Amino acid sequence: MELSEAIIERRSCRAFVPDPVDETDIERILEAAIWAPSPLNTQPWEFKVITNRALKEKILSEGERCKAWALEKSGWKWLNGYNMDFLAAAPVIIAVIGDPKKSGVDMFMEDGPTGYQHACAAAVQNMLLTAHSLGLGSLWFTFYDKTKMRQILDVDEGKVPVALVCLGKPDGDPAPAGRKGLEKKVSYIT
Amino acid sequence: MELSEAIIERRSCRAFVPDPVDETDIERILEAAIWAPSPLNTQPWEFKVITNRALKEKILSEGERCKAWALEKSGWKWLNGYNMDFLAAAPVIIAVIGDPKKSGVDMFMEDGPTGYQHACAAAVQNMLLTAHSLGLGSLWFTFYDKTKMRQILDVDEGKVPVALVCLGKPDGDPAPAGRKGLEKKVSYIT
Repeated sequence: MELSEAIIERRSCRAFVPDPVDETDIERILEAAIWAPSPLNTQPWEFKVITNRALKEKILSEGERCKAWALEKSGWKWLNGYNMDFLAAAPVIIAVIGDPKKSGVDMFMEDGPTGYQHACAAAVQNMLLTAHSLGLGSLWFTFYDKTKMRQILDVDEGKVPVALVCLGKPDGDPAPAGRKGLEKKVSYIT
Repeated sequence: MELSEAIIERRSCRAFVPDPVDETDIERILEAAIWAPSPLNTQPWEFKVITNRALKEKILSEGERCKAWALEKSGWKWLNGYNMDFLAAAPVIIAVIGDPKKSGVDMFMEDGPTGYQHACAAAVQNMLLTAHSLGLGSLWFTFYDKTKMRQILDVDEGKVPVALVCLGKPDGDPAPAGRKGLEKKVSYIT
């Protein structure tokens, strides 16, 4: 698929059919992930490919727990209607685990390391684009407590579950989300 | 260009020829940026397209200041040889400015908002891939103090200069950086 087509046509998908995802497709998605750039080429990522039903249910429970928490904290009533069943329904979830010790120079900065997270986010974007090019739907999910998700996924203490990527054949066409025009977002300093 | 080709062949470029970048190429790169996903589709980004020579020199000075600081802090002697002249040489630098107030639910979390940064990072990845597909070299640059860069770029107090993207025709072939094999990075939970 053409790069620009993948970038513009990718959608967040929240409904999947149960068919398993081909192993070769998963490998292509992971291969795309590791070609993302990273600070000093530290490649600060690991991936856990989750197809285990019980584990997906635990992830869903953590999402639901966070939803209840966020509802109280934010007062955003629309959260009530936010259904996260796709977490259990997605045939595959790939957890992207980041390593803050591989963050380049910003590991010395007061704000703490962020570069490793940005690299992981770039890896996720490569994954989403590649999934779309393979006819798969995807969702970038981060609505969980990091400490809790570390326990659920049995991640080492010093590492961070930066994102979960849900993957599967889409059930229906995900709705497109519009974008504000460039004129609202860009200024020029010449 | 094919998506997979762009993902695998993109390189970090640290040497540019002075030719200006076509406006249509800059627009295509920005258009790609805004199709990145973001929390609740908040589109938490703005872009400053910098071609002003004096401003690029200021950015270079801030990079040099940070290098001196990092050398002292890290003891990484190789930093001495890290030449950042590409900051002044790049015909265009696009600053990606993020808005922490547009970070979805994580704006309520104790660790502070990160989703807006991840969205900006995904936008940067779209930019790098699109630049490569247009025959342009690019560099994702974050080696600066955020408060200082906010002043240099005249960014609103509440917003964050998440990244600078240097763009231009590459001077020579950027060296490829290898990747660890998937077998070192992936585990399966079935």
